[in-house]
Amino acid sequence: MSNRIRIGIAGYGNLGRGVETALTHSPDMRLVAVFSRRDPASIVLRDTTTPVHRLERVDEFADAIDVMILCGGSKSDLPEQGPALAARFNTVDSFDTHARIPEYFAAVDAAARQGSRLALISVGWDPGLFSIERLFGEAILPQGATYTFWGKGLSQGHSDAVRRLPGVAGAVQYTIPSPGAIERARSGTQPVLETREKHHRECHVVLAEGADAAHVEQAIVTMPDYFADYDTTVHFIDAEQLRREHGAMPHGGFVIRSGRSSEQAAQTMEFSLRLQSNPEFTASVLVAYARAAHRLASRGETGARSVLDIAPGLLSPKDPARLRRELL
Amino acid sequence: MSNRIRIGIAGYGNLGRGVETALTHSPDMRLVAVFSRRDPASIVLRDTTTPVHRLERVDEFADAIDVMILCGGSKSDLPEQGPALAARFNTVDSFDTHARIPEYFAAVDAAARQGSRLALISVGWDPGLFSIERLFGEAILPQGATYTFWGKGLSQGHSDAVRRLPGVAGAVQYTIPSPGAIERARSGTQPVLETREKHHRECHVVLAEGADAAHVEQAIVTMPDYFADYDTTVHFIDAEQLRREHGAMPHGGFVIRSGRSSEQAAQTMEFSLRLQSNPEFTASVLVAYARAAHRLASRGETGARSVLDIAPGLLSPKDPARLRRELL
Repeated sequence: MSNRIRIGIAGYGNLGRGVETALTHSPDMRLVAVFSRRDPASIVLRDTTTPVHRLERVDEFADAIDVMILCGGSKSDLPEQGPALAARFNTVDSFDTHARIPEYFAAVDAAARQGSRLALISVGWDPGLFSIERLFGEAILPQGATYTFWGKGLSQGHSDAVRRLPGVAGAVQYTIPSPGAIERARSGTQPVLETREKHHRECHVVLAEGADAAHVEQAIVTMPDYFADYDTTVHFIDAEQLRREHGAMPHGGFVIRSGRSSEQAAQTMEFSLRLQSNPEFTASVLVAYARAAHRLASRGETGARSVLDIAPGLLSPKDPARLRRELL
Repeated sequence: MSNRIRIGIAGYGNLGRGVETALTHSPDMRLVAVFSRRDPASIVLRDTTTPVHRLERVDEFADAIDVMILCGGSKSDLPEQGPALAARFNTVDSFDTHARIPEYFAAVDAAARQGSRLALISVGWDPGLFSIERLFGEAILPQGATYTFWGKGLSQGHSDAVRRLPGVAGAVQYTIPSPGAIERARSGTQPVLETREKHHRECHVVLAEGADAAHVEQAIVTMPDYFADYDTTVHFIDAEQLRREHGAMPHGGFVIRSGRSSEQAAQTMEFSLRLQSNPEFTASVLVAYARAAHRLASRGETGARSVLDIAPGLLSPKDPARLRRELL
């Protein structure tokens, strides 16, 4: 197919690898290049025929790529790369620092308009699919309460925070939603749930040689922002066990809308994900939305968008008549 | 608010009453008139200040109504009213005869284009929200299987089929998804599930005087199309019990997408509804989509659309910047 959507990947970590894999399931798309800040010679792709280039050379490919999928991190990569690349390419990214989305949107929007490109920001599952479900919940059942639970899942940020502590040689942290809190959210009673009762945190820690377990545990459970507001349990394990049992990146969660359409009728909407690989799933969402970005750009639309602006049908390779016939 | 969206209701049964109630939770909308084929004097609204008119007078109100919400049935009302009203009004309807959606869409689309109106068809939860979730599932996880389960819920069509049998004085039928089949759909193994193993059917029947229970039961469980392909249980109850225990219209269901993003990773997406009132929930969906229809029409868009064509943000009274800040 010569009219396949030409995709570029900017950043080749777990997410970039996930996008490469997801593209193999989308015959209407074609990966044409991977860009990285690392030495291209040091990068081994799954599909070794795709060329790898230094990110600084990306401008040379402006006419060769329909949509660039940004696979950098939200902390330091995307705030810079998002606007820079949206000035030259149609882009899709998974910017997920919730509090900074308005300023990020504004910066990407300005750059994309300037360059007459379309940029789809904050694509993934939260922000992303969960945002859509929260919107459906409050728009359809205006009288109600929305509950978001995350997990059971590996939290990269919290794992990193534990690893940085003195005396810690390795660690993973799982966020675990409390079954009792989920049941209360589903009950139709619209309870107020405090942070501490919604989730607890579980750490699996490898001690550095000579470190004191009690001391490390205390440092974890009292860490402000990360653990102090939660019930946290700490398990000490050895390095082999860490490698063997905690190498996967599962995640998931629930969005529950508990509302009433009248005094008599409680109504509950629930969306949930159970993911064996968080980065691969996020990558799969990015690839579907790359199709939408391409379609909007092909119509001449420019500027920044979020998933809330995208009609579901634009995600599918099928035409509208077929979608109505098969899925409606 | 003088710029509230002016809503009309065409048809005042359970669904029309649900729309009237749902509108009380949407301060940006205003119910301006109800239309019925019955004598207006015979109709008692919840909000008695809204005028009721005969449906045949509806043309007189073309300039007074921004969106007409069609609350007739899919079997005989909508095939006629859908195109007729879409020629004169922006409309939203819940046409739910899945097999006939393509021809219904074509008829409504032609009428709406002719009249320069916008018509949103097949809005509700299935077709509707479930359709969107089926689309998300296959677009995001192309390698996978989708499972739709309905219930536990009252099926109007099946209840009617039982009521029409000789010897039956009253009846309700519940469709019940099989817990074992749901677990298998969630398991990540992508099983093939046969009709009979996905749902069973439960009938609560009041016998007419002198009717033979065994005979009625046999007539139910062998009824082609409706019951013959399912495991069906029949309970005989008295009229008082039918009134007391089976007056509500609960429903719900599940859409499960079981997919793999790679050999290593099974991923599961699930959307579910637990509804204490099926018509009130469908009405709540119709009202949110009436807001979207009004917005599209205000931009000058014409013709028929389905929920698959509607960006989620259009359902909310909040502006895009606020949605990004609060929900993304």
